[in-house]
Amino acid sequence: MKKPFPETLLNQIRIVMVRTSHSGNIGAAARAMRVMGLYNLVLVEPKQFPSQEAISLASGAVDVLENAIVVPTLEEALKDCHVAYATTARPRYISSKLHTVEEAAVEALQGIKNEGQQIAFVFGTERTGLTNEEIDLCQRMMTIPSENSYNSLNIGAAIQVVSYELHKAHKKTLDLPLIQANEATDELATSEMREGFYKHFQDILFQTEFLDPTEPKNIMKKIRHLFQKRDLTASEIHLLRGVLTSINRKISHD
Amino acid sequence: MKKPFPETLLNQIRIVMVRTSHSGNIGAAARAMRVMGLYNLVLVEPKQFPSQEAISLASGAVDVLENAIVVPTLEEALKDCHVAYATTARPRYISSKLHTVEEAAVEALQGIKNEGQQIAFVFGTERTGLTNEEIDLCQRMMTIPSENSYNSLNIGAAIQVVSYELHKAHKKTLDLPLIQANEATDELATSEMREGFYKHFQDILFQTEFLDPTEPKNIMKKIRHLFQKRDLTASEIHLLRGVLTSINRKISHD
Repeated sequence: MKKPFPETLLNQIRIVMVRTSHSGNIGAAARAMRVMGLYNLVLVEPKQFPSQEAISLASGAVDVLENAIVVPTLEEALKDCHVAYATTARPRYISSKLHTVEEAAVEALQGIKNEGQQIAFVFGTERTGLTNEEIDLCQRMMTIPSENSYNSLNIGAAIQVVSYELHKAHKKTLDLPLIQANEATDELATSEMREGFYKHFQDILFQTEFLDPTEPKNIMKKIRHLFQKRDLTASEIHLLRGVLTSINRKISHD
Repeated sequence: MKKPFPETLLNQIRIVMVRTSHSGNIGAAARAMRVMGLYNLVLVEPKQFPSQEAISLASGAVDVLENAIVVPTLEEALKDCHVAYATTARPRYISSKLHTVEEAAVEALQGIKNEGQQIAFVFGTERTGLTNEEIDLCQRMMTIPSENSYNSLNIGAAIQVVSYELHKAHKKTLDLPLIQANEATDELATSEMREGFYKHFQDILFQTEFLDPTEPKNIMKKIRHLFQKRDLTASEIHLLRGVLTSINRKISHD
């Protein structure tokens, strides 16, 4: 396979679509894969490929279509593969363990990282799925948990969910944190700043007669609690103090 | 909302699509939702609805389309909602925490189970996503981790991934005992209550001349953000409204 794409563990995964009837689904699959960092698409006996419809539904993922390989049999598609997961709506062999897509994704990434495996996720034709003979060529069976039968899950949507779980498992494998929220840029307020704010707030409440100066405790406790549920930043305290001062001014000068 | 569907915790979740341009995407969303047991679709100003294209792409999920509600504004869509998640490609406020879809789904199901919350997941228009004003109406921001920018993720595929994570979280939630929140007696404020509070707060700031009525936006955004970091409860909103009213009275009568 040519590899014009970033070098990651995900390059050792191929998505195999068997006898796909609708070209649009091949395009949707390419898009679903690419957004999650998967680039290897193998098409077994597609009804039509390449096609304008696939290109149009691939959106920005035309390069995945260009990289796609067409083969005559599933056997050929899996030739150099260590582990293949057959996607199914329900277990057909009672004795076979049915992995969820999440379990399968985690296991696949471990196999790639620890043993350099080549992995395939195999999707059957739209209406009838994989034949028993095709399932026999795979080492594992996998399903996407859902409310109804898998048959209602569009094949593009199924490949989106599988690609998403593989992307998550990849990130976990690399032990990288997911997108870090940049909460650090704004410094937290100091205790002194917070206390100054509560004092100022309380003074306003006395002036507006919202609080009885002889018994402020309970209400002020609630106010504190409300603001302390999360950490106020210095600039937020500054803003709140500005608001209070404007109220002060209005009350005294009017 | 009429509910011809199974009674589950997922019924307290609505998927909100804002100004969707392509009717086909509405159909794909309905299908993606239904297969994962989600039935409540709210459409804010769709370009066209109902439509033949939506029905054709909905496949077996025409009942979700029939159950869909069309409203003129996002505010209306979120009126009785306790927590709304804005879906975004990347954080727009530097200081805002960005939840992954998995975290958001788990949190949402806990909120429903423990506190009976109504939850919304909000998706913007295809090309440009949600406006900053629309994001401001939501309490949380959520993203689907992916290789490229979220923009490449088709909206139907995005709703499939979100629905899939909600379905997983639902299954997990059913397996867990009910967690008693310490503050369980105090309900979270609804979107309507919060918006009423911000409006009132802004009026006060105009009266105290803290805000220039011609350019209130930036400051009000900071105020919103400050309060939205915290989950305000109904009784807290009540308390804050009381404070504002006392200031009103003082300013007008002094």
